[in-house]
Amino acid sequence: MAKYVYTFGGGKAEGNASMKNLLGGKGSNLGEMAGLGIPVPPGFTITTEVCTYYYENDGKYPEGLEKQVQQGLRYVEKVMGAKFGNRRNPLLVSVRSGARVSMPGMMDTVLNLGLNDETIQGLIAKTKNPRMAYDSYRRFVQMYADVVMGAKGDEFEELIRGKKKEKGVKDDTELTAEDWQELVGKFKEVVREKTGKDFPTDPKEQLWGAIGAVFRSWDTPRAVSYRQLHHIPEDWGTAVSVQAMVFGNMGESSATGVAFTRDPSTGDKRFFGEFLINAQGEDVVAGIRTPHPITIAGKRDSGLTSLEEEMPEIYQQLVQIYEKLEQHYKEMQDIEFTIQEGKLYMLQTRTGKRTGFAAIRIAVDMVDEGLIDQEEALKRVEPAQLLQLLAPIFETEAKQKAVEEGRLLAKGLNAGPGAACGRVVFSAEKAVEMARKGEKVILTRTETSPEDISGMAKAAGILTSTGGTTSHAAVVARGMGKSCIVGCGALNIDYATGTITVRDKVIKEGDYVSIDGTTGEVILGQLPTIPSEVIQVLVQKTKKPEESRVYQQFDELMTWADKHRKLGIRTNADTPGDAAVARKFGAEGIGLTRTEHMFFEGDRIDAVREMILAEDSEGRKRALAKIMPMQKEDFIGIFEAMEGLPVTIRTLDPPLHEFLPHTDKEIEELAGQMGVEAKRLKQKVQSLHEANPMLGHRGCRLGIAYPEITEMQARAIVEAACELIKKGKKVEPEIMIPLVGHINELRGQKEIVDRVAKETAEKYGVAIEYKVGTMIELPRAALTADQVALEAEFFSFGTNDLTQTTFGISRDDAGTFLPMYVEKRILPHDPFQSIDRDGVGALMKIGVEKGRATRPDLKIGICGEHGGDPDSVEFCHEIGLNYVSCSPYRVPIARLAAARANLGVEAAVD
Amino acid sequence: MAKYVYTFGGGKAEGNASMKNLLGGKGSNLGEMAGLGIPVPPGFTITTEVCTYYYENDGKYPEGLEKQVQQGLRYVEKVMGAKFGNRRNPLLVSVRSGARVSMPGMMDTVLNLGLNDETIQGLIAKTKNPRMAYDSYRRFVQMYADVVMGAKGDEFEELIRGKKKEKGVKDDTELTAEDWQELVGKFKEVVREKTGKDFPTDPKEQLWGAIGAVFRSWDTPRAVSYRQLHHIPEDWGTAVSVQAMVFGNMGESSATGVAFTRDPSTGDKRFFGEFLINAQGEDVVAGIRTPHPITIAGKRDSGLTSLEEEMPEIYQQLVQIYEKLEQHYKEMQDIEFTIQEGKLYMLQTRTGKRTGFAAIRIAVDMVDEGLIDQEEALKRVEPAQLLQLLAPIFETEAKQKAVEEGRLLAKGLNAGPGAACGRVVFSAEKAVEMARKGEKVILTRTETSPEDISGMAKAAGILTSTGGTTSHAAVVARGMGKSCIVGCGALNIDYATGTITVRDKVIKEGDYVSIDGTTGEVILGQLPTIPSEVIQVLVQKTKKPEESRVYQQFDELMTWADKHRKLGIRTNADTPGDAAVARKFGAEGIGLTRTEHMFFEGDRIDAVREMILAEDSEGRKRALAKIMPMQKEDFIGIFEAMEGLPVTIRTLDPPLHEFLPHTDKEIEELAGQMGVEAKRLKQKVQSLHEANPMLGHRGCRLGIAYPEITEMQARAIVEAACELIKKGKKVEPEIMIPLVGHINELRGQKEIVDRVAKETAEKYGVAIEYKVGTMIELPRAALTADQVALEAEFFSFGTNDLTQTTFGISRDDAGTFLPMYVEKRILPHDPFQSIDRDGVGALMKIGVEKGRATRPDLKIGICGEHGGDPDSVEFCHEIGLNYVSCSPYRVPIARLAAARANLGVEAAVD
Repeated sequence: MAKYVYTFGGGKAEGNASMKNLLGGKGSNLGEMAGLGIPVPPGFTITTEVCTYYYENDGKYPEGLEKQVQQGLRYVEKVMGAKFGNRRNPLLVSVRSGARVSMPGMMDTVLNLGLNDETIQGLIAKTKNPRMAYDSYRRFVQMYADVVMGAKGDEFEELIRGKKKEKGVKDDTELTAEDWQELVGKFKEVVREKTGKDFPTDPKEQLWGAIGAVFRSWDTPRAVSYRQLHHIPEDWGTAVSVQAMVFGNMGESSATGVAFTRDPSTGDKRFFGEFLINAQGEDVVAGIRTPHPITIAGKRDSGLTSLEEEMPEIYQQLVQIYEKLEQHYKEMQDIEFTIQEGKLYMLQTRTGKRTGFAAIRIAVDMVDEGLIDQEEALKRVEPAQLLQLLAPIFETEAKQKAVEEGRLLAKGLNAGPGAACGRVVFSAEKAVEMARKGEKVILTRTETSPEDISGMAKAAGILTSTGGTTSHAAVVARGMGKSCIVGCGALNIDYATGTITVRDKVIKEGDYVSIDGTTGEVILGQLPTIPSEVIQVLVQKTKKPEESRVYQQFDELMTWADKHRKLGIRTNADTPGDAAVARKFGAEGIGLTRTEHMFFEGDRIDAVREMILAEDSEGRKRALAKIMPMQKEDFIGIFEAMEGLPVTIRTLDPPLHEFLPHTDKEIEELAGQMGVEAKRLKQKVQSLHEANPMLGHRGCRLGIAYPEITEMQARAIVEAACELIKKGKKVEPEIMIPLVGHINELRGQKEIVDRVAKETAEKYGVAIEYKVGTMIELPRAALTADQVALEAEFFSFGTNDLTQTTFGISRDDAGTFLPMYVEKRILPHDPFQSIDRDGVGALMKIGVEKGRATRPDLKIGICGEHGGDPDSVEFCHEIGLNYVSCSPYRVPIARLAAARANLGVEAAVD
Repeated sequence: MAKYVYTFGGGKAEGNASMKNLLGGKGSNLGEMAGLGIPVPPGFTITTEVCTYYYENDGKYPEGLEKQVQQGLRYVEKVMGAKFGNRRNPLLVSVRSGARVSMPGMMDTVLNLGLNDETIQGLIAKTKNPRMAYDSYRRFVQMYADVVMGAKGDEFEELIRGKKKEKGVKDDTELTAEDWQELVGKFKEVVREKTGKDFPTDPKEQLWGAIGAVFRSWDTPRAVSYRQLHHIPEDWGTAVSVQAMVFGNMGESSATGVAFTRDPSTGDKRFFGEFLINAQGEDVVAGIRTPHPITIAGKRDSGLTSLEEEMPEIYQQLVQIYEKLEQHYKEMQDIEFTIQEGKLYMLQTRTGKRTGFAAIRIAVDMVDEGLIDQEEALKRVEPAQLLQLLAPIFETEAKQKAVEEGRLLAKGLNAGPGAACGRVVFSAEKAVEMARKGEKVILTRTETSPEDISGMAKAAGILTSTGGTTSHAAVVARGMGKSCIVGCGALNIDYATGTITVRDKVIKEGDYVSIDGTTGEVILGQLPTIPSEVIQVLVQKTKKPEESRVYQQFDELMTWADKHRKLGIRTNADTPGDAAVARKFGAEGIGLTRTEHMFFEGDRIDAVREMILAEDSEGRKRALAKIMPMQKEDFIGIFEAMEGLPVTIRTLDPPLHEFLPHTDKEIEELAGQMGVEAKRLKQKVQSLHEANPMLGHRGCRLGIAYPEITEMQARAIVEAACELIKKGKKVEPEIMIPLVGHINELRGQKEIVDRVAKETAEKYGVAIEYKVGTMIELPRAALTADQVALEAEFFSFGTNDLTQTTFGISRDDAGTFLPMYVEKRILPHDPFQSIDRDGVGALMKIGVEKGRATRPDLKIGICGEHGGDPDSVEFCHEIGLNYVSCSPYRVPIARLAAARANLGVEAAVD
C-alpha cells in the first residue's frame, strides 16, 4: 500500500528537507529537524499526493489513509506520553497546511485541536490555569468554526464585546475563566445557528474536519488566483502536518523562550535570547512580564536570573542544539523553544533577521569560520543594509532621552538616511549665509526646487512638508548623501512668519531640530551625531582602517562583490568633490554629470540669465562666452578627479524658466540688478511659462532651438579634455544628449559636437577620443532605438523620466495618489524607487535589443535614480546593461547588488 | 547587336508604358503617347541597361551605342525637318534623365541643347526674337556648365546682376538681346576659368556630355542616400531621353497652351484651357500676358478670341487628342501643347490636379461613363478633399443684398471653390503674421510665386489680379483646398501704397473682403456664411437631395466607400445633437462620449464644485446625487439618438481643478455664490494645483481616489440604459475607464461598474448587456496590454495622450518647438495630426498584439484626434483595429479613408 503519512519526533523522522514536493515546506522542515536529533514536538505529515487524490476523486481519501493517520497519531501519543481525547492526560495537536511554497489564501493553522468539555479538564489540571485553558478552548472553537465549518462573521467578536461590556471591563485579559467558559458555550450555539450542525466534540471528528479543510483551502479563489499569477501548477497540492501541542505553562519546570544564535544587532558571535518560566510563547513578546536572559553574560546588570543558572542542563542541551542548527543551516538562526515539564522542545528555527551591521559581520565571520564561501556571504547581505554603515548616527542614548522628554515633533518619510542636526532655515540663501558663519542648518521648506541647490549643498539636512521619496528634495539629498526627511505633513511651514507649527509647538527660524533620516523622526533641539565609521575611514580619514572592524569587514565584502559582478559601476557627480568621494566608494567612471547644476553656481547665473534674455543668437553667444571658461574649469576638475576613467556629461536639460525668478518681488530685484526693465523680465518669465514643463521645451529641444548652447558646452568639454591631453593625461569624455525622441534630434546635436570637437582638436593639435550618445528617457527613444543607435555611440537609460512618461505620472504631482496606489497595492511598489519591470522594463528591453541590433557593441548604462536601487540593478544586469550609475553614496550598494545579481540572488522588490 | 536606343514620334514609337524598367518613367511614357498616335516632339531614349553597363565598365559605353544614337538623331531630324547643328534650320533638343521612379538628386533636364554661335542665327531667324534666342542660349550655357561641366557657383548670377546695375535696370526682362549675347561670352569665360576647358561648341560633343552627365547623376550622394532610404536597388540605373525642342514663338502660326480635359474646379465634363499665340509655355502661366480661352464656351464675356475660332483645325485635332488621352488613361488629364509653325505637338500629359468638388464629380461621372469602376473612383478622391464639400458657403440673400448695395467689386476666374472672408493683406509675411494673431486674411497679389506658399497656407483665401486658372495661384490653392479667385483684372493692386483700387473704390490693407471661389465674385466687406449643400441636405434638411447634384454624388461615393471598407466608423459625441449629426454622416456608433463636458452644463457645475469642496466621501456623495439625474438624462438622450448602436462612455477624465476658477477675483465671486470662505476655496484651488497636470491626478486616478464618482457615473449610465430597455429599446453601452496604466486600476473600477450594474439591473428587473473597457493612452497600458486585456472587454486607443507621453511632448507647450521641428524636418510631420508610426504606432501594434493574445476577440478602436486623419485611418486598418472614431464632420473622411486603406491606397503623410 502507498505511504501517505510520514512521522517525525522522538529523535527521528521518516521525512527530510529533500522531500518538499511530497511533504510540503513545513512537513519536510519538521522532518529535517527531527532527523537531526533536534527535539521537536512529535507529529506526522499527510502527503501532497493525498491532496491530489482528494481532488481527482470528488473529495474522497485514498484507501488506507485513515489507518495510517491512526498509526501516526499513536506514534505521537507514544512520544508525548499523552492520549488524544483523554480527559486526564489529553494530547492536543495543531493542524497546518503546507504546500511546496507558502501561499496566501490557504488555511494556516488550527491550534489546540482535541479540546472538548472533557479534555479541557486535563489541560486545566496540567496548567493549573483555567483561565488560559478556557481562552485556548474558545480560540479553538472560534478558529475551527471559521476555517473548518465556514461559520464566518462578526458574531464571535460581538459576543466577546458584549461580555466585556456586561462586566464593565476594557481588555480581553480582564475576562475570567468563567467568562471564557460561558463564551465557549455561546460560540457553539452560534455555530449551530449558522451551520445547522453541532460543533464536533469527538477529537477524531475534529481532526478529520481540519484535514479536509486544509485540502479544501487549496482551492479557495484567492489561492487559485495566486497560483495563476505565479504560475504554480494546480496539481502540486498541499500537505497537512499534524503536530503535538506543547505547553510552557505547566508549572515551574515548564518555560518558553526565543533566542538568536548570534547578536542580531551587532552580529557578535554570542548566544542571545530571552525566556520566561511557566509561560506561553506570546508572554515573552507581549511585554507584560519582563523576560529573563538566557545566558549569564546576557544578564548584565538586570538582576534577572538566567536560564543558564536556573536550568543548567536544559541550557546545555539548548547550546548544543543551537550550535547544531547553525552548523546545519550555516546561517544565524532565530529559534523558539518550549520546556514542558522539564522536557525541551524546539518549536521553530528560521533565519534570523538582523541589522546591516550584523549582516556584514555575520557574513564575513562565517566565511572566516569556513561555514560559507564568499559567494554565499554576498548573498547574505542585502544591499540596502549597507546604508546603515554609511549614515551618520545620533547617539542612541541622547535620542532616547529626547523622546522621553516629548521632543519628538513628527515623523515623515525617511528619504535620506542618517542623522542631522542644525538650526531651522527657510530659504537656500539663509542656509548659505548661516553655513558661511559656520552654523549647521536644516533647510526646511514645503518643497525644494533647483534654485535651492546651493542651499541644500550647505545644509546639514533637508526637511520638507510635502513630496515623496523621489521628490526633488529627496533625490538631491541622496545624491549629496544628506540626511533628509520629506513629506512631513504634520509640519505647518509658514514662510511669511518664519515659523513651523506642529500641534501646539511653534518652531522659529534659528531654532534647533534634529532629523533622523533613517527613521523619519524630527526631534526638537540638538542631538549629538557622529559620522559612521566607514565614512570616518574612507572619506574623512579621521580613523585608520585598522581601527575599525566595521570598515574592514565592509571593505572585505566590497572586494568580494567586485570579484563577482559583471556590471560596471559609475556615479552621478556634478563636481570634482563628488567625483572624488565616489571614487573612494569604488566608482569606475561617471555616468551622469548634470551641467545645469554648474549654471547655478556663484555669479554664473547672471550670465545664464543674460543669455536667456538675449534678443538673438549673437546676444546669446556673448553671454555664453562668459560661462564657457567656467564650465571648462568644471570639466577639467572632474576629468582630473576621475583620472582617465570615462566621464559622461549631459548637455543642458532643464527648461530655461528654472533659471529665472518667479515672484514679482524677485523679478523686480533681479531686473534692478541686471539693469533691465522689470516688465521685460516679467514678460520673458511669462513667455517661458509652460502648462506641463516636464513635457515642454527642455532637453535637446533647447540645444536644437539654441544651437549655440550645445556648441558652448561641447567646446568647454573638448577644450578641457584637450588641455589635459596636452599635459599627458588620459581623458575619456562621453557627451550625452538628453530627451531625444527622434534620431534627427540627436543627429543635429551630434553634428554640432563633432564639428566643435574637430575644430578644437585642431586648435590644440591633439588627438581626442570621445563618444556622443543619448539618454533613453522617452518611450519613443526606446521604441525606435534601432534608428537612434545609428547615431548614438552609447545609450544611458534615464529611468526617472522614462517612468514618468511610461506611466503618465509626474513625480512632482504623484504625491496625491501614488502613496495610495502603493498602500492599496494597486501598484506593487513605487516605480520611481524600483524599476517597473513589466512596463518601463519592457521598454528598456526593447531599447537594448533594438539598439544592439543596429550597433552590437553599443555601450548601455542607466543614470536614473534606479541605478542605486538593488532590485533595479538586478534588472539592469539581467537585460545586459554594461553599467549602472548612481549617487556617490549609493556606489557600494550598487556594487553589492551587481554581484548578487550575477550570483542569481533575486532582489526583494517591495 | 543589343538594342540600346528606342525612338518615338512621327506617329509611332518603339517603346511603350510597359517598358518602364528599360526606358524609365519618362521614356516609356513618351513612347506610350507616341504609340497612341499623339503628336509628341520626336526623340529617342537610351536604355537603363546602358547606365548599368556604364557603371560596370568604368564609364565606358557599350559598343554600337554611338551608332544607335546617331540613327536616333537622324530619325528625329527627319520627323522635325531640321538638322542638328545646322545654322539655318537647327534642331535643338532637350536631354532628360528618367529612372523607373522619379528620384531627387538626379540631373533633371538640359534644354536647348545644340545651340552655339552659329545655330543661334537659325533660331533668331525662325523666332524673329533675338532677345528670347540669346536668353535661351545663356540659359543653356549656364545649365550645361553647372550640371554637365560641374562649374557651379554664383558667378553667373553675379554677372547678370552686374549687367543690370550697369544698365540701371531692375528686372532680367529689361535686358536686351545684346546684353544677353555679351553675357553668353562672359559665361563661357567663367567656364574656362573654373574648369580649364572651353565650353563645347560642337552640338554632338554637347549631346554626349549631357548623356554622360545623366548617367553620372545616378551616383550623386543625394541620389544614393535617397535610394538607400527607399530601398531602391543600385542596379536599376537611369535611362536618358533626348527629345526635339519645339517653339510656340515662331510667329503667328505658332502658339502654346495648357488645358484640362475636364473643369478642374467643378469637375464639369468640358474641355477647358488657355493659350497664347506666338509665345512660350512659361508666358501662359507667368501672368504677364492674359491668356486666351481655348473654347468658344470658355470665352464668356472676356472679349478674348478662342483657339476654336483662331485655329479651328488645330482645335479639332486637340479635341480628338484629349478625348483619346482620357479614354486611354481613364483619368482627367492636364496637357501642355505647343503649335510650331502650324503643327501641333503635345509636350506633356499628366493626371490633372483638381478641387474636391471636381474630384468627386469626375470620379462619379467616370463610373457612370463606364470608364472606371467604383474601386477606382474611391482611389481617385483624397479623403481631405471631402472637406470642401462640407465647408460653408455665403448666404444667398446676404450676398444678393451686397450686390444690390454695389459691394460687388469685381469678378475674376473661379479657381478654388468655396467662400472665404477676411482682411486684405498684400504679402505672404503679413498673412503669416496676422494669421498667427488669429485673424482671417485674404492674400491679395498681382500673381503668386513659390515664395508665397507659407502665406497661402495661412490665408483663408487667395485673390490675384492676373493669371489664369492654371496659374501658380490657382494650382496651389486647389491643392490646398483654398478658396481662390485669379485673373481679376479689375483690381489695381499697388503694393507701394498698400491699396487696391477698383474703379472709384479704394481698399486698404486690413479692410475686409469676401471672395466666392465658386463664382469668382469679389465682394467688399464681411458676408455671413451658411452651411454647404451637403450640410443643408444632410443636417439642416433645408434642401432636398434631388436639389443638389453635389450631395447626390457625395452620397453615391460614400455608399461605395461603405461597401469597400472593413473598419467600422464611430464618432466622438458628447450630446444627443452631435450624435444625431454624426449618424447622418454615417457613424455606426459612438467611440467616445466625454462625460466631463456634461459637468459644465448649466448649474451642474455648482454641484460639481460642491463635490470637489466636500470634506469626505459622504459629502461628495450628496453632491454627486444632484448630478446623477442630469447625467442620466444626458445618456438617455444619447442612447436614443444612437438607436441601439454601441455607445462608448468615458468616466470622468480631467483633473478636478479644471472645474474651479483660478484668479483671485473669480475665486472670491464663486466663494460668495457658494457661501464658503474665499480662503478655503483658494486653499482648495491651491491644493489641486499641479506642476504637470497632464501627468497628474486625473483619469481613473480620480475614480480610484473617489470611487463615488465612478459609482455615480456607472449608475447614471446603467439606469439610463435600463429605462430604455424597459421601453423595449435596444441599448449597447460600453463603459470606458481612462488613463489606465496598470491592470489593477482597471480592475477596481470595473468592480464598481459591475456591482452597480448588477444592483441597477435588479432594481429595474431587466437584463442589460454592457462592456467595460479602457483607453490605451499611456505607454504602459500598451506595453502590458496582455495583462490589461484580462479585465478589459475592449480597448480604445487615446492617441492624443499616447502621443504626448510617447514623445514626452505636451500639446499645450509644443508651440515653442514643434512647428520648428516640422519646418526643419526633424520630425517628418506633426505627430498630433498623423500617427507617428515608428513610435506611437509601434506601441499601438504591441497593444493590439498583446491584447488579442489574451483575448482574441478583443474589440479595439481609436478615439483620439487621429481617428479622422486619413493616414492614421490607413494605419488603423493595417494593424487590424475594429473601428475608428472621430468628430462628426470627419466621419465621411474616415469612411472614405477606410475604404481606400482596404483597397490598398497609400495615404500621403505630410
